[in-house]
Amino acid sequence: MLSGTRFRALLDPDSIAVVGASRNPAKLGHLILSNLIRAGYKGKLYPVNPAGGEIEGLRVYERAAALPAPPDLAVIVLPREQVLEAMVELADARVGAICIITAGFRETGRDGFELETAMAELARRRDITLLGPNSLGLINTKCGLNATIAQAFPSEGSIAFFSQSGALCSAILDWADGENLGFSKFISLGNKAGVSEADMIEALGDDPDTKVIIGYLESVDDGEKFLRKARLVTEKKPVIMIKAGTTRAGARATSSHTGSMAGNLAASTAAFRQSGIIEVHDLEELFDLARAFAEQPLPAGPNLAVVTNSGGPGILAADACEGAGLNLPRPSQKTLEALTAALPPFAAIYNPIDIIGDAPAERYRAALEAVVADEFTHAVLALLTPTASARIEETARTIIEVAEGCDKPIFTCFMGAMRIGPGRDLLIKAGIPCYGYPEPAVRAISAMLAHRRWLDRPYPVEVCFRRDVGRAKHVLRQARKLGLQELPFADAMDVAMAYELPVPESRLVRTSEQAVRAAKKIGYPVALKIVSPHIPSRRDVDGVAVNLRDPNELRKAWLDITIRAQRKRPDAYIAGCLVQAMGPVRAMEVVVRFTQDPQFGPLISFCIAGPSAEVLHDVSHRLAPLTLQDAQDIVREIKSFPLLQGARGGAAVKLAAIEDILLSMSQMATDFPEIREAELDPVLVDAEGALVADLRLTIG
Amino acid sequence: MLSGTRFRALLDPDSIAVVGASRNPAKLGHLILSNLIRAGYKGKLYPVNPAGGEIEGLRVYERAAALPAPPDLAVIVLPREQVLEAMVELADARVGAICIITAGFRETGRDGFELETAMAELARRRDITLLGPNSLGLINTKCGLNATIAQAFPSEGSIAFFSQSGALCSAILDWADGENLGFSKFISLGNKAGVSEADMIEALGDDPDTKVIIGYLESVDDGEKFLRKARLVTEKKPVIMIKAGTTRAGARATSSHTGSMAGNLAASTAAFRQSGIIEVHDLEELFDLARAFAEQPLPAGPNLAVVTNSGGPGILAADACEGAGLNLPRPSQKTLEALTAALPPFAAIYNPIDIIGDAPAERYRAALEAVVADEFTHAVLALLTPTASARIEETARTIIEVAEGCDKPIFTCFMGAMRIGPGRDLLIKAGIPCYGYPEPAVRAISAMLAHRRWLDRPYPVEVCFRRDVGRAKHVLRQARKLGLQELPFADAMDVAMAYELPVPESRLVRTSEQAVRAAKKIGYPVALKIVSPHIPSRRDVDGVAVNLRDPNELRKAWLDITIRAQRKRPDAYIAGCLVQAMGPVRAMEVVVRFTQDPQFGPLISFCIAGPSAEVLHDVSHRLAPLTLQDAQDIVREIKSFPLLQGARGGAAVKLAAIEDILLSMSQMATDFPEIREAELDPVLVDAEGALVADLRLTIG
Repeated sequence: MLSGTRFRALLDPDSIAVVGASRNPAKLGHLILSNLIRAGYKGKLYPVNPAGGEIEGLRVYERAAALPAPPDLAVIVLPREQVLEAMVELADARVGAICIITAGFRETGRDGFELETAMAELARRRDITLLGPNSLGLINTKCGLNATIAQAFPSEGSIAFFSQSGALCSAILDWADGENLGFSKFISLGNKAGVSEADMIEALGDDPDTKVIIGYLESVDDGEKFLRKARLVTEKKPVIMIKAGTTRAGARATSSHTGSMAGNLAASTAAFRQSGIIEVHDLEELFDLARAFAEQPLPAGPNLAVVTNSGGPGILAADACEGAGLNLPRPSQKTLEALTAALPPFAAIYNPIDIIGDAPAERYRAALEAVVADEFTHAVLALLTPTASARIEETARTIIEVAEGCDKPIFTCFMGAMRIGPGRDLLIKAGIPCYGYPEPAVRAISAMLAHRRWLDRPYPVEVCFRRDVGRAKHVLRQARKLGLQELPFADAMDVAMAYELPVPESRLVRTSEQAVRAAKKIGYPVALKIVSPHIPSRRDVDGVAVNLRDPNELRKAWLDITIRAQRKRPDAYIAGCLVQAMGPVRAMEVVVRFTQDPQFGPLISFCIAGPSAEVLHDVSHRLAPLTLQDAQDIVREIKSFPLLQGARGGAAVKLAAIEDILLSMSQMATDFPEIREAELDPVLVDAEGALVADLRLTIG
Repeated sequence: MLSGTRFRALLDPDSIAVVGASRNPAKLGHLILSNLIRAGYKGKLYPVNPAGGEIEGLRVYERAAALPAPPDLAVIVLPREQVLEAMVELADARVGAICIITAGFRETGRDGFELETAMAELARRRDITLLGPNSLGLINTKCGLNATIAQAFPSEGSIAFFSQSGALCSAILDWADGENLGFSKFISLGNKAGVSEADMIEALGDDPDTKVIIGYLESVDDGEKFLRKARLVTEKKPVIMIKAGTTRAGARATSSHTGSMAGNLAASTAAFRQSGIIEVHDLEELFDLARAFAEQPLPAGPNLAVVTNSGGPGILAADACEGAGLNLPRPSQKTLEALTAALPPFAAIYNPIDIIGDAPAERYRAALEAVVADEFTHAVLALLTPTASARIEETARTIIEVAEGCDKPIFTCFMGAMRIGPGRDLLIKAGIPCYGYPEPAVRAISAMLAHRRWLDRPYPVEVCFRRDVGRAKHVLRQARKLGLQELPFADAMDVAMAYELPVPESRLVRTSEQAVRAAKKIGYPVALKIVSPHIPSRRDVDGVAVNLRDPNELRKAWLDITIRAQRKRPDAYIAGCLVQAMGPVRAMEVVVRFTQDPQFGPLISFCIAGPSAEVLHDVSHRLAPLTLQDAQDIVREIKSFPLLQGARGGAAVKLAAIEDILLSMSQMATDFPEIREAELDPVLVDAEGALVADLRLTIG
């Protein structure tokens, strides 16, 4: 249903103007026109060039104003200095969409950046859908549209691909050609001055010819929009993405390539996960998964049946399953009986089912039909090695027959190259993924299962917390007025209380005698903490004493703390001290934090305090706002989660208490983007509940 | 120099008898003979079949006894019942080596196992090199020897492949055919009744036609021999292996496939590492690496220069480098100047060097020559995407020219399939590895760097500890006499002292007054621990009190402990209690352990006590005997190693003290294979030294 959407003119145009069309075959302005003609585009083609005349039998218009009718799409292949003017002319000619092939804008420095900004602004004002600049162009196989400067034209298929790298497009077109992989649309986003990755996901989500969307990204421009669009589209079809520049080395390379920042890896991974996008880490996986999703139904569960004519590859498949969350269950009694009846005595009838090297096609049929019929089987993987007696094409045809009318996904792995080639081609043509090794097949099945679970997830529970936004706002405004970056502890406590975070009972006191009276009301043991607007980090002045058990200890601590603070920061105004109730002694310590990611907004993170987080980086992340499910996931996702369940002999802690805190922090991060960073460290948790023992808020 | 070795008759025979040769083209006995003829084997061929006559123009001998001369090699393709008898006849005819294709032995059950044992015994007694049974056969491309039942014959090359899975051999032969990968030898080990993986590594290590050895293993039969042989061979040439059955699911599949146990993954990984074998985890990586090692010199260091005609793939390469331990350093000033002079203004001259999509071959030449000349460059990766203006074949030829006479390794990645095909073929023919994606190229370079470092490692320092073997032997003998499985604590301490492990000063006492006197000598604070031959685990009876600060606390603890022990185990004989010096209070706790692996012998493991080991499985392993380097590696290899360096604010601990303990334990494990398991948990370490605070020894 692209018709009627604002992307129709770009992706499915009835007429195309090629601005900068050229008679000279060495020029891109010629290549793009001849590509359009050769691919069999059925709409109207208007070459535009001041020289006029004819190119390839088409009348050349001297300028856009001379066109007989407003074109849906204009492709610009002019020198960079002429682009903006041509855009104005095209706008006046009421063009619907413009694709700019010309490069040399944002990626080249300040001048280019300003020119690109002006172009984007013009497109926005005149309501033109703008693709590029620095785009390789776009392809719509259904209508024979090849408006690219690439030499290959892919066959029709149900996979749509978009890419922020143009060169990658040409590599993939060439690769698809060799791999018999069909595409519906193929779009090079270029510098994304107009159409962004979020727009493209939305457009392809609405495209009836596209079953699977795959993309290559180096940066995300508007994280919030990206999340919103992607969430809607992943409900309808799988979206598989590779994000480059995810390491420091890659990020350096990215910024010198596109001038865009790669952003925080944790944030983009969280964004992908929370919007149901399947993230992959290399190109091979991208296409392995694209084929699987395009051609096979999703498995209903994790049980894989492996049928093989040799033991070794069966073992490799089993090894791969273990890490991928798939099971190789023992077949049901009925299936075992069917297998025993159909297979020779030395066959292995437990899963993997080894039907032995001399297996003819009919033995594959018997084994496959038996496991497909097994109610516990969710997916089937047929492995073949080209043994001397293997009947490769016949086996391929048999697998195709078994797959017909079977509602479970079937995958194959034919190992080898020359001899297995014809069998592999038959399978691929019939829409059955055929891999060269067991591992990528297992990886694809595992990704499909994960997507099935994403689709089957319960409705998100959005939690809205009672909170006193006015009180928090007041505190933050005061801090800004004072020019503070980090809130004094007492103010941070105030904000925390406004969000009903479980902070310990606290009283601000000005003398040691007030402290003793406060401690009596709170109950011993207590903690004592220095309070000064000029001392944001109490640790710097040793301004904390904990576990004070009686008035004497408290009085002594008062002297120690205040004298130390005055000695270390003689300029600081000491407002007094906080007397606080102590948390549970045998509690575990966890840390809840948020930061504002420049691309995706507030990023919440969670970890267990200590070496697992600091040394082993065992931290989980989600973007705010969190759903209840997100809060539950983030807690359970860290590798050290068993510790919270009492793995080392302690009691299991109250997870719901942590989830409440995560949800409150999500709310705070969403309410106050000006809080640049918030850190609850540590949060004490035990079987009864949680207590925020210390916190820091930084404003920007 | 295979001549003169016992493998010459098998791998490079002058004459071959095919026992079970057949005139019937449907039979394996025909296939193997015609494979030998078709591949152009130049030696003598003797078909053997009771029917006599002629096959393919060759005289058929009715029996082995009738052969005109002793054959170097006999290939047996008889029904399983006739194999043993044929072997006896061949032995009498003074055969040098036998390869048994026939299957149905150990893998089928008890009868088959016994038959196979008899065959192996015969071969050993009559000094015959035995390959198989259940082998697919073997190939030597140099002498046109194809004694297999596979249909493909690979081209000549410098890679030798051996495999425990026959079917995998046929897949790989077929694959190599398509990939233009040449082999020197190709051997299917089958059931390994005679020739084992260790033998084969040794034989191929001596083979002058083999530069790289690659192998697929499901089990290792004699770990000690494997290690010894592999260590020698990896000094001469790289050995790359894939071990299947490394997960629980895979191990189940292995044991139903070959009847052999997969063994402990940690032990086989340690064995590979300690013998310099490069371990890979999928078949694709196995061949990617084989090609790189066969064709390019090893990089001298981690600095990679990437030259690309498109930004995206450059970023993907940079991302891959970060995880692989490779650097993309900024080029030297001289190189930057050369690049600036040679490249257009928008090119990126920092690494990755993006020479832009319209790059002609000459631009590749300029960039490549500049980075090759840079003294900081250790390896070069040239990336090409098939842009419209890419000159693919010309670029390939240019890269080949640059690579000629260059002593640094050069790798390429041409992305795509159809258009890049001819360029890729040129590169591969010229011996320059060409990958389809950046990631596998980076992976290969990283593996070569690791191998370079293995070869450059310092000479192993073998440490021999002073120890009192007699004292330890006496204690262990006494424990065996009593039928104990776990040594009583005092006895374990005795063994530890015999190995001069740093155990705390301890005295066995029988009354609380003796305890007080002992504590006075040792110095407070002390620990008190129950001692009873019937109570191996003191924790079960709460038999430990620590940090006792004065005689009163000690007396009270004595009562508590002894009364509890008597109440919980009224049947136990209480020998008394140990009074022990306390370890340092602020120490870190680590754990040193060994177990006896059935395949590889004593496996030493090391971890930091606590969640990183128990929940995150952050444990490192090495096989005994350890060299000093091994002991240093095992400590530094755990992911939480920064904790030992004081990452969380503590002081760095004395690593040498831990290494000493690891080396002592290695010595103990080697001296006493009857100690099935030893566990020092915890070992207290601080900046001063280490103390073994508790230990358990289990004997078998």
